Amino acid sequence: MQIVTLTTDFGLDDPYVPAMKGVVLSINPEAVLVDICHTIQPQNLAHASFVLEGACPYFPAGTIHLAVIDPGVGGARRALIIKTPGALYVGPDNGVLSHVLPSALREGVAGPEGGRVGLPPGFRAIELQNPAYQRHTVSKTFHGRDIFAPAAAHLSLGIPLEEFGPPVDEIMVLPLPRTVTVPPEAAAGPPGTTAAPFELAGQVVHVDRFGNLITNFRETDLALLGGGKYWVQIGGCAIDRIATTYVDAEIGEVVALMGSSGYLEISVRDGSAQAVLGAGTGTEVRVRTVS
Amino acid sequence: MQIVTLTTDFGLDDPYVPAMKGVVLSINPEAVLVDICHTIQPQNLAHASFVLEGACPYFPAGTIHLAVIDPGVGGARRALIIKTPGALYVGPDNGVLSHVLPSALREGVAGPEGGRVGLPPGFRAIELQNPAYQRHTVSKTFHGRDIFAPAAAHLSLGIPLEEFGPPVDEIMVLPLPRTVTVPPEAAAGPPGTTAAPFELAGQVVHVDRFGNLITNFRETDLALLGGGKYWVQIGGCAIDRIATTYVDAEIGEVVALMGSSGYLEISVRDGSAQAVLGAGTGTEVRVRTVS
Amino acid sequence: MQIVTLTTDFGLDDPYVPAMKGVVLSINPEAVLVDICHTIQPQNLAHASFVLEGACPYFPAGTIHLAVIDPGVGGARRALIIKTPGALYVGPDNGVLSHVLPSALREGVAGPEGGRVGLPPGFRAIELQNPAYQRHTVSKTFHGRDIFAPAAAHLSLGIPLEEFGPPVDEIMVLPLPRTVTVPPEAAAGPPGTTAAPFELAGQVVHVDRFGNLITNFRETDLALLGGGKYWVQIGGCAIDRIATTYVDAEIGEVVALMGSSGYLEISVRDGSAQAVLGAGTGTEVRVRTVS
Repeated sequence: MQIVTLTTDFGLDDPYVPAMKGVVLSINPEAVLVDICHTIQPQNLAHASFVLEGACPYFPAGTIHLAVIDPGVGGARRALIIKTPGALYVGPDNGVLSHVLPSALREGVAGPEGGRVGLPPGFRAIELQNPAYQRHTVSKTFHGRDIFAPAAAHLSLGIPLEEFGPPVDEIMVLPLPRTVTVPPEAAAGPPGTTAAPFELAGQVVHVDRFGNLITNFRETDLALLGGGKYWVQIGGCAIDRIATTYVDAEIGEVVALMGSSGYLEISVRDGSAQAVLGAGTGTEVRVRTVS
Repeated sequence: MQIVTLTTDFGLDDPYVPAMKGVVLSINPEAVLVDICHTIQPQNLAHASFVLEGACPYFPAGTIHLAVIDPGVGGARRALIIKTPGALYVGPDNGVLSHVLPSALREGVAGPEGGRVGLPPGFRAIELQNPAYQRHTVSKTFHGRDIFAPAAAHLSLGIPLEEFGPPVDEIMVLPLPRTVTVPPEAAAGPPGTTAAPFELAGQVVHVDRFGNLITNFRETDLALLGGGKYWVQIGGCAIDRIATTYVDAEIGEVVALMGSSGYLEISVRDGSAQAVLGAGTGTEVRVRTVS
Repeated sequence: MQIVTLTTDFGLDDPYVPAMKGVVLSINPEAVLVDICHTIQPQNLAHASFVLEGACPYFPAGTIHLAVIDPGVGGARRALIIKTPGALYVGPDNGVLSHVLPSALREGVAGPEGGRVGLPPGFRAIELQNPAYQRHTVSKTFHGRDIFAPAAAHLSLGIPLEEFGPPVDEIMVLPLPRTVTVPPEAAAGPPGTTAAPFELAGQVVHVDRFGNLITNFRETDLALLGGGKYWVQIGGCAIDRIATTYVDAEIGEVVALMGSSGYLEISVRDGSAQAVLGAGTGTEVRVRTVS
């Protein structure tokens, strides 16, 4: 049994996603289809990459992840299969698959459009060119159905990678919004405390259904701040510690904690931090330590 | 083949649900995953229990139902497996699994938070404690992925209940909003009729996608009213009969009927009773008989 | 392995869809369930037929498509299985399955309610009457769960068509909104051009998640216009060509192209034609050729 996951910005109201599923099952009726997300914000590659990063690592080794967020369909962007040490990815070469690369490789990429990055050892990629593994007629506007779904289905049948087309050395990667060290602001901590010589500036990168604000601070970022008491600032709100879980807070209290994805989250217990703080994707977050 | 259903308040836009599915399939690639609902109102345990009650009974015997609505994650609430005569349930011990108990046992529970109820004969429960059946690292904020999904997956492999942890005798149960008998109101029925000596007061407990108002009146409640002609009152609207199906009514007419879940529903044919009546969950409904 | 697809207007928030899935799996635990769409606009048969037409053809031969959009449930409308040369369809006889018939047969149907059409060679239909293949108790308001899901499940087990009930010769079919030839409007094309002696009037029949406006113009319709340069008019907007794909246009430009479903689409590159043009289902579209 071979699992094929699907991620798109096609929504759940149109025939596009079931058409892709029908195509996969027509080629491999034994494929096990699992939806990751179909409500990616239309054409939002960064959103897709974030959702894929949070879901794909939990699937069995060898899972085939089909991701079709494809604003450039019908244009010059390439169609790829990427084989990583753990999984296979099928999608357009536009950055939607950025998350498959180690963070270290993504950090060098600058500019909102991203850039090409060489594949590290253990990775392979090919460009989908062999028409034998595409639908007979390929539309100019729906490669999800006519190129990507057939590729995933044929992969799930065990067709070797090199059959699909020529190898590719570099793939498009979106910039990873990194936290940066900055001089401390004037009002750096509670009265009577001394701020560290620098602090970290980051941002909200995702808002989930509960209104939790997921930031781009990881454990390793926070470790840079050394010892002391954490002090988190977002909008006009200061949070004087990093809690362990939601129930450490009072109902309605704003709390910062390391979330399940490994990123710092700002939450409101039994409420929505998005609503309480008026924050969203892109809102700046500062973290410092005080002593 | 073993069916595992999933019910959460995680929505369809975030990586949480597919992460749980990936965890289940990593442990048991043969598990057959079926979504019940992921758009439970955030942290609304009563909503979840209502949806589970309407769906779970239709699944094959032995189905494993995973239900993660978990506002107390990371706190003191227990994590459970409950085995009923027909199925297995996995979820937090916070009332989300209330529907698994017979109504008679749920009726004694008072207070909005619910209370503990002893398990009846034929039921078993255990507390999830054995780390062998949890993910290696358990986050403090996502037990759905790290504790509940692995438990469901291991159950689906046939691991015996007692392997997961110690037995539990009582579980948290939400109050079942019951109909009550009340003295009749002044304007009890149409002119020239005599009201029965008492009537029933209940409420809307769910509004479905069509705007149908599902109440907490069952056949057995209505039977208490004895013979005569039914007279249903909701908001300012009186309905002079209980119809058999939607098409018994004129287009746009407000109609009361016994719905497919076994509860009295207020509907508008080819329209939305929610919109027409301005009603919602919690709106009072009165039923009486007149002669 | 037998695929059963599901299409309903029940939404994803209520227990109705999972109850149907539970019923199918209780009868045939090996059935492979695939959702086509559950967010059909409530009781909108034309919407359902459009989505089914866009998805069903991509599934393997012999797939069973269960479609329950059923405003007349409990009334006189029949419950059907229709066997086409490629697939099996299960649903109410109210036009929701119109798309299974060749367009030529659908074009004769007039009036918004549709009409009965005789089945062409290679098609069979039966009326679901045999209680052996229904749930023990059939509710008056949820035949999806009690009649249609059991029929699909028993079909998937290989029960022959004639076991379910008597044959049916005609089925209800919705009118197919056709394009019509009309005299050219005054301002028929760009200055200095000559309009053809007639033009085609059609309409938007679907708006997708991206705000693409899908019309009822097919290649064969456009071929009627003969040679020349296309000129598409919608609302106050004129489009002076039919493009090949989205990226042929500038960002934000309104573009007309033959979409992946075989219909002319009006799109805005990296934007929403619905929003930009203030158009929706039913908006008139004119196509002419100029030389």
